[in-house]
Amino acid sequence: MIETKTVFFEAIDSMIELNFEKFHGLVPVVIQDHTDGQVLMVGFMDREAWERTLAEGEVVYYSRSRDGMWKKGETSGHVQKVKDIFVDCDDDTLLITVEQVGGAACHTGFRTCFYRRVVDGELVEEGVRVFDPDEVYKKDKKT
Amino acid sequence: MIETKTVFFEAIDSMIELNFEKFHGLVPVVIQDHTDGQVLMVGFMDREAWERTLAEGEVVYYSRSRDGMWKKGETSGHVQKVKDIFVDCDDDTLLITVEQVGGAACHTGFRTCFYRRVVDGELVEEGVRVFDPDEVYKKDKKT
Repeated sequence: MIETKTVFFEAIDSMIELNFEKFHGLVPVVIQDHTDGQVLMVGFMDREAWERTLAEGEVVYYSRSRDGMWKKGETSGHVQKVKDIFVDCDDDTLLITVEQVGGAACHTGFRTCFYRRVVDGELVEEGVRVFDPDEVYKKDKKT
Repeated sequence: MIETKTVFFEAIDSMIELNFEKFHGLVPVVIQDHTDGQVLMVGFMDREAWERTLAEGEVVYYSRSRDGMWKKGETSGHVQKVKDIFVDCDDDTLLITVEQVGGAACHTGFRTCFYRRVVDGELVEEGVRVFDPDEVYKKDKKT
């Protein structure tokens, strides 16, 4: 089962050429929950992160702050299992629908990183924390 | 009515500080249809585009290819009316829900720029064209 998936994603990689040159070697990636369409987070991929995502079927990013690969969930176990991949009209942005293991994408414990909405000129927290980040992240890394 | 809205957005601008320094002066902006949550497109804003969006209540981008301001719909009339603004946990990414005038965000005439899905290793077009781009864009500019 796993092997079949790997072959499938390798086939994808060979046929889809993304435009990494347009913006400093990176493409933005919107992550959307496959069950209800909520936007969970936005990350970036370089070519290596894109190829790893295709090969592993779980989302791998390029972390700008860490300047390197960052597999979501490598510490917490809250990986993002790829359901569908959409490529935009310019081949320079991805939209990936995922199954978010653990129920929350944000390192703060909220389901989405976009848990603050502008209301009457202020940022107001919405939703509930799915987990306590102090419990989930025993180490320094927040993934 | 318009004046009230302008004051409201100016108030927002003064209280919310985005991190433009993190990534070449830009923040990515996910545009989501407010009616059903479909992700329509991803753009970038610099500080000026952000301030104009707040002041006008319609989305203004920084165009990387044109190296300047780009108000969505300035040619086609297909502006994006801001409904809600969400700021991510790092203050470096925006999620904006909009009313997409004209029904389509993509210059190709599709409702979303993400109209191609990966199916069995190939990119397959989905959805229908809402408009004929040759009819809408009389000029060279695609907005």
